[in-house]
Amino acid sequence: MKKSILIIGGGFGLSWSIARLFSKEGMDVSIASRNIEKYANLDSEIKLNLYNCDASIIEDVNKLFENIDKNTGTPDLVVYNPSARVRGPIGELNPNEVKKALEITSFGGFLVAQEAAKRMMKRGSGSIFFTGASAGVKGFPNSSVFAMGKFGLRGLAQSLARELHPKNIHIAHFVIDGGIASRERPNSENETLLEPGEIADIYLSFHRQKRSTWAWEIELRPWVEKF
Amino acid sequence: MKKSILIIGGGFGLSWSIARLFSKEGMDVSIASRNIEKYANLDSEIKLNLYNCDASIIEDVNKLFENIDKNTGTPDLVVYNPSARVRGPIGELNPNEVKKALEITSFGGFLVAQEAAKRMMKRGSGSIFFTGASAGVKGFPNSSVFAMGKFGLRGLAQSLARELHPKNIHIAHFVIDGGIASRERPNSENETLLEPGEIADIYLSFHRQKRSTWAWEIELRPWVEKF
Amino acid sequence: MKKSILIIGGGFGLSWSIARLFSKEGMDVSIASRNIEKYANLDSEIKLNLYNCDASIIEDVNKLFENIDKNTGTPDLVVYNPSARVRGPIGELNPNEVKKALEITSFGGFLVAQEAAKRMMKRGSGSIFFTGASAGVKGFPNSSVFAMGKFGLRGLAQSLARELHPKNIHIAHFVIDGGIASRERPNSENETLLEPGEIADIYLSFHRQKRSTWAWEIELRPWVEKF
Amino acid sequence: MKKSILIIGGGFGLSWSIARLFSKEGMDVSIASRNIEKYANLDSEIKLNLYNCDASIIEDVNKLFENIDKNTGTPDLVVYNPSARVRGPIGELNPNEVKKALEITSFGGFLVAQEAAKRMMKRGSGSIFFTGASAGVKGFPNSSVFAMGKFGLRGLAQSLARELHPKNIHIAHFVIDGGIASRERPNSENETLLEPGEIADIYLSFHRQKRSTWAWEIELRPWVEKF
Repeated sequence: MKKSILIIGGGFGLSWSIARLFSKEGMDVSIASRNIEKYANLDSEIKLNLYNCDASIIEDVNKLFENIDKNTGTPDLVVYNPSARVRGPIGELNPNEVKKALEITSFGGFLVAQEAAKRMMKRGSGSIFFTGASAGVKGFPNSSVFAMGKFGLRGLAQSLARELHPKNIHIAHFVIDGGIASRERPNSENETLLEPGEIADIYLSFHRQKRSTWAWEIELRPWVEKF
Repeated sequence: MKKSILIIGGGFGLSWSIARLFSKEGMDVSIASRNIEKYANLDSEIKLNLYNCDASIIEDVNKLFENIDKNTGTPDLVVYNPSARVRGPIGELNPNEVKKALEITSFGGFLVAQEAAKRMMKRGSGSIFFTGASAGVKGFPNSSVFAMGKFGLRGLAQSLARELHPKNIHIAHFVIDGGIASRERPNSENETLLEPGEIADIYLSFHRQKRSTWAWEIELRPWVEKF
Repeated sequence: MKKSILIIGGGFGLSWSIARLFSKEGMDVSIASRNIEKYANLDSEIKLNLYNCDASIIEDVNKLFENIDKNTGTPDLVVYNPSARVRGPIGELNPNEVKKALEITSFGGFLVAQEAAKRMMKRGSGSIFFTGASAGVKGFPNSSVFAMGKFGLRGLAQSLARELHPKNIHIAHFVIDGGIASRERPNSENETLLEPGEIADIYLSFHRQKRSTWAWEIELRPWVEKF
Repeated sequence: MKKSILIIGGGFGLSWSIARLFSKEGMDVSIASRNIEKYANLDSEIKLNLYNCDASIIEDVNKLFENIDKNTGTPDLVVYNPSARVRGPIGELNPNEVKKALEITSFGGFLVAQEAAKRMMKRGSGSIFFTGASAGVKGFPNSSVFAMGKFGLRGLAQSLARELHPKNIHIAHFVIDGGIASRERPNSENETLLEPGEIADIYLSFHRQKRSTWAWEIELRPWVEKF
């Protein structure tokens, strides 16, 4: 079977840039998202395997991986991108939305990592990458729920790095600190936004790291971003 | 009304030590727990207000605070202790148990903090303390779910510290690193376990910190504990 | 012999507050500083043992501890306060001043800790406390030299905590984040500055921690301080 | 003028691997070291500009950069590798050796960064990379001096990242966690040592990062290394 990547989350910024880069590298590309129709209607230059999946729902994730098993086999790389941001002073937040946000940002990462890790351990190799945010290393005011979810995702990733690196499975967590440029929000002349293509390059360079010299985390931000 | 403390979580180690110390300090003590019967049958030397409450359930937490409003008024200090540990290699964990663990360790902390913060902001003062673990600052292997939950709780606490300190509400997160001594597991002569009474003393000293000199976090461990 | 404390650094903010508090607690108080004359001329209500000492000079520190041996014996607590701040864009700094700043902020901490640790290991107990700054956990722009020195001091303290805690010597590092109030710079009504008396209280509470429940670090800042 | 790199530190592990890789990339390579004779006698396949320089001595560093100005012009990339390790229980260390170790590990990094930054700011671009160690993020027992020096170097690097990134100068700090393979200490079949060639690849990928997406730090370790 061809090398393959599974991308969870269907934004047209980072997910789409990763899809194009890894396709160019000769890999089969699958994308799973709650709104996969966006991609279905896309007149894409690359072949995509598209799946409807709410990564925070156990049954959805199980079914996704069963389909992946049949169609492209255990991915060489799985990337977890989804997150839900509930913003505002703590007193004004809706607890039901908070619960769902935590399920998407943290719990979905666990579900996908679990199904991926089971298969990769059987094969004896693979990479699982998590897209984090500066909210995962610093809790900002009026952002308690995003901090809870992204800190949680980072804790999951760090623990899995310690658990799975010695099993030849490469875990990495990417701290994206700043806005990401997109068609709707193009970069300024001064490059004050992260370029999704550049981020994708770094995901690729991590996937190519030799196991003698693995990194589990990197923080990426524009040169002018305060931190 | 008398000064009061609300303790979430009904273990006989730390929760019980905090209850006794703050009662001795002249405060009204309330304890809320999923298994509050344990306390109901206790022949206690101190007066306790006991509440049945699963802190990971929205309705339970709402009802708890309505009862607190009627009985003792907005607490001066709320302590969140509950956590659920699901241990093992990631491939062997039950996703439903993982979900519940995350709800108890992280989401319940949010629910309680939200209800407490609403009331404390109205009054203009108060303290909200979270009991964390070394798993909240370091993700250990075979502990991915506990890491996810405790990192999440820490992110919540850090964000709330930045949000609520300027509103005169003191937030603190305690990193308990090591086993806690108890009747069932008494300390060795060499004091290799944390003494719950000593931990409670430190919670009290934090509650007494003047706002000119607030701390939001401390790590506590026995002298011989590796870290 | 009476219990005793040795304070390195002779500012009238923190050092002086620590001196008064521990004297009130019944301990012999020694202060060592490059400008000890300030204290010699002070009409102090408390008895002080004063020493001239540049803590960044090997011979000075050796001589200091020899005198301490004779006069008050091995201290129960040694506090290291000195630091030198060289500020500005990296291109504008004087390398000779940078070198001296590093010697005062980091190397002096080592020298004092070494002499103290030798004696405390012989006795089998003691505390060594280091006064850090937010610059020791976050490197701010135009503050590269202070960051270098205070990160270095924190690394020293953390390593000594791991090395000496199991030898019954308590190491602690205090991250002071914000301005400290003083006679020349009194606190505002809103308490936007750290109160040195409050900081001293926290040093005392650390010194009194039982070894079953030791902390090695705490961050202190006013409630309104951004972090 | 051709693109050029200046490497401080003349080990045959990392420094040498960086030299070969960047030479292959078409850059002029300069190496400065206290023992540059080692290289002078080397029958090297690549052209090297060799300089005698103790990076912890102000005059040496000034002279080095004056020579670099004349010979190859302001480097596009400067890499600081030197460090001195003084190991052992704190009571057994020689203070004079400790002082020199701190000067090599921290102060030399400042001196080199200062001279490099002055020139790069004039030109408006450049990269300055620091080679750190796990001792720079965790203070191990019996390693207090190495922790002091490497924490210090990391603080310097972090501060310079915040100061110089907005001036289009890329700062990075590499946390090398584990032993590095070399001719004398070849890697095992299981790849338990870091490959210096792989580390060099990552330095190159950092140097090529676009400023829209800069990282300032990465931790590198073998897949089986405990952390």
